[in-house]
Amino acid sequence: MSELATTPEPPYYAAIFASLRSIDDAGYALTAERMLELAAQQPGFLGVDSARDASGLGITVSYWRDLDSISAWRRHAEHTAARQAGRARWYRCFTLRIARVERAHRFEAE
Amino acid sequence: MSELATTPEPPYYAAIFASLRSIDDAGYALTAERMLELAAQQPGFLGVDSARDASGLGITVSYWRDLDSISAWRRHAEHTAARQAGRARWYRCFTLRIARVERAHRFEAE
Repeated sequence: MSELATTPEPPYYAAIFASLRSIDDAGYALTAERMLELAAQQPGFLGVDSARDASGLGITVSYWRDLDSISAWRRHAEHTAARQAGRARWYRCFTLRIARVERAHRFEAE
Repeated sequence: MSELATTPEPPYYAAIFASLRSIDDAGYALTAERMLELAAQQPGFLGVDSARDASGLGITVSYWRDLDSISAWRRHAEHTAARQAGRARWYRCFTLRIARVERAHRFEAE
């Protein structure tokens, strides 16, 4: 079972990406995995949580030190190409929200 | 297939709840559904996106007009009881982050 992202004390930023898949193909899964791997190598990356349910609705929340880190990742060539493929083929609908995390709380069962 | 939340122009707030389930029982599903229904009736509620993958990792992001709306929902008696049950029985780990949404973008395929 995967673990939840561990982040430093706020403030920091969250990129909240919610999506509905249109078609399911091998390219999507490979690209999605590669983007998570690549994001984790970017300056300012703090962590990521991602879930996709059986209906095709997915939510990925990535955490970043500041807005500049998010902008730099947005301009990354491989990420830009993946976003174009997402718009053209993989997503029926998506929303992206950029938010400043002000408070955070974590619970771990004993 | 479900739809993604539609929200007004920022700024507004997001409550980002990520969780790992510990056990699976009927009480959980009923309570989770009831909490989504009840949240939607609260003043200041703007929308919600929720996904849980096969591994038991779930993300629910609810959107709110302001911090007061989030605080009031937190104090709701039925929600308080559900959170206690979540801590005692349903969750191995969870994180809750309160964030101010500053930018939002939506894509719909043609």
